[in-house]
Amino acid sequence: MSVTMSLARFDSIELDCGRALRPVVAAYETYGEPNADRSNAILILHAFSGDAHAAGISAETGKPGWWDSMIGPGKAFDTRRYFVISSNVLGGCSGTTGPSSTNPATGRPYGSAFPPISIADMVRLQQMLTESLGIRRLLCVSGGSMGGMQALQWAVSYPDQVASVIPIASTHRHSAQQIAFNEVGRQAILADPDFNHGDYYGGRYPERGLAVARMVGHITYMSDDSMRQKFGRRRRKSRDQSDMFEVESYLRYRGGKFVNRFDANSYIAISRAMDTFDITEAGSPLEDCFGRGDARFLVLSFTSDWLYPSYQSQEIVRALRTRNRDVAYIELESNYGHDAFLLEVGEQTALIKGFLENTFQRLAA
Amino acid sequence: MSVTMSLARFDSIELDCGRALRPVVAAYETYGEPNADRSNAILILHAFSGDAHAAGISAETGKPGWWDSMIGPGKAFDTRRYFVISSNVLGGCSGTTGPSSTNPATGRPYGSAFPPISIADMVRLQQMLTESLGIRRLLCVSGGSMGGMQALQWAVSYPDQVASVIPIASTHRHSAQQIAFNEVGRQAILADPDFNHGDYYGGRYPERGLAVARMVGHITYMSDDSMRQKFGRRRRKSRDQSDMFEVESYLRYRGGKFVNRFDANSYIAISRAMDTFDITEAGSPLEDCFGRGDARFLVLSFTSDWLYPSYQSQEIVRALRTRNRDVAYIELESNYGHDAFLLEVGEQTALIKGFLENTFQRLAA
Repeated sequence: MSVTMSLARFDSIELDCGRALRPVVAAYETYGEPNADRSNAILILHAFSGDAHAAGISAETGKPGWWDSMIGPGKAFDTRRYFVISSNVLGGCSGTTGPSSTNPATGRPYGSAFPPISIADMVRLQQMLTESLGIRRLLCVSGGSMGGMQALQWAVSYPDQVASVIPIASTHRHSAQQIAFNEVGRQAILADPDFNHGDYYGGRYPERGLAVARMVGHITYMSDDSMRQKFGRRRRKSRDQSDMFEVESYLRYRGGKFVNRFDANSYIAISRAMDTFDITEAGSPLEDCFGRGDARFLVLSFTSDWLYPSYQSQEIVRALRTRNRDVAYIELESNYGHDAFLLEVGEQTALIKGFLENTFQRLAA
Repeated sequence: MSVTMSLARFDSIELDCGRALRPVVAAYETYGEPNADRSNAILILHAFSGDAHAAGISAETGKPGWWDSMIGPGKAFDTRRYFVISSNVLGGCSGTTGPSSTNPATGRPYGSAFPPISIADMVRLQQMLTESLGIRRLLCVSGGSMGGMQALQWAVSYPDQVASVIPIASTHRHSAQQIAFNEVGRQAILADPDFNHGDYYGGRYPERGLAVARMVGHITYMSDDSMRQKFGRRRRKSRDQSDMFEVESYLRYRGGKFVNRFDANSYIAISRAMDTFDITEAGSPLEDCFGRGDARFLVLSFTSDWLYPSYQSQEIVRALRTRNRDVAYIELESNYGHDAFLLEVGEQTALIKGFLENTFQRLAA
């Protein structure tokens, strides 16, 4: 399945911070076909460092999408039945307007002039996109990690425009520990003299800081046990023939790869959006967010995920139940830590497939 | 209790790497008095960033020792009964020979010329120190985290010179995850252009990289729950009046403080010593390490310590039991994560006090 990326252009978007972006572009891909009344549309929401390319083989890069195991003919999000949309988030660096986009006021990249963005801003742009595609109500919004935060925000911001919500390995607000790990990444970038307060385009990129930030991330995405199984204490020779642990080699490799595809300002902007995200505004109880709409929820978490622990998913489930919302919760056994939402295909497929079919049939009835 | 630091000078020390340091200095403090036959000596072993100043008020700095809650008259390590010794580890930066010490070959700090060191090298210098103090057998060796690794190494390197061992929140070898967190810290330092391959003395210090490294450490020393209780999602104003989370402010503050007291080369050398530490040499079973000597063991770990999880302590206990060694193991309930060994004074005191008294009486009998 060869796919190409499209761009949707809009005159402007108003942001939670009070500022606006003019114009704004959303990069997106679609898989499958819409039905006559466009009631079979599913919006897939990517995690922190993801992009619009969720499925199929990119015509531009030749690479499979980040959730290709879950989206396609006969897969969890079955493109023979559903019209699947995936877009790059606002603030990103893969086609959608972000800090590396051209600032029309200067003709140069925004850099430090890019406004702070929120998860709700990301969702606002997604809603503009789905509306432009002629979709009045999404059959489902789903994503893991930060994708799950966006899915929850959809249910709160546009309760009448979503029929079902599948937040996976996610939370309605970051804990102090989650903020702390993000902050270390940001400080690693800020410590790189090449960062230059965010105005590094055209000069040297803060590659060293960004690589360190990514290494921290990778540790938090795996579990103690999955790292033991994958690396243990095995050693290998580094390029300079010195002895190193395989886990060190892996982290350096992944950190080095990341700087070729990700922008440091996007790292800071998006991680800030995650940290400031709190779906309960002004300290009100979580269940008060879920007073409107009739979307059904399927909430998933994983036993070994210590970055987004199951108790955070359970808080969401409790609040939904308190409002008598239709919600199912499953904690899946997995050894993969937070990465499980990308890797545990079998059980997720069985659960999601049935949930979507049932939701679709109810809507048709 | 005002205490002063002493220096013990030795002509040389042979290292595991095959090189030697000539001369070598060990910085140490003592608390309490030795008895006639010097059979009441306890060696306290510090963790990664600790120093010789474990107890009392330093005459030099006016500050309390890092384990002052545990060492003193009537405390867990009761200085009315025992002669307590604490030294800075080899490779450190608080008086003992390390990368920032003068290299006699050049008259300048060692820097990149400092040889790689091991936990066994640290213990070798400690043994030279205790021997020079006229001690033939230590009543006890004890420490938390890296201090526990040294305590285990004592039991293996000098089985006839220790009567009891108390490793706390420790391990006999680092897991891939523990190595990974240390590696991120090292990479943050190496990414700092001021590091200059380790030869930064007399120039700008790699403060930014070292601060980031320390921030990662602090997250791993706390638990998810203790961070929630200490910081939650509370906010405060930063110096430039921008809004920040308290946990961000805390990490930046601790990172900034650390660079004033710790040396980046010591960070790298000591963290490497921890990562390469594996008390089972050449893949032999752990119990084979404990075939010699009759030291008694008290092994402690903490429920919320995810950096040095209880299963690592239990592996040690299992190996000791397999060799029919005298070992007691207690997993203490604590919310403090890895920091618990510094903070959970009450229960540790009760356990250690009784264990030491009993050991001392047995020796006297």
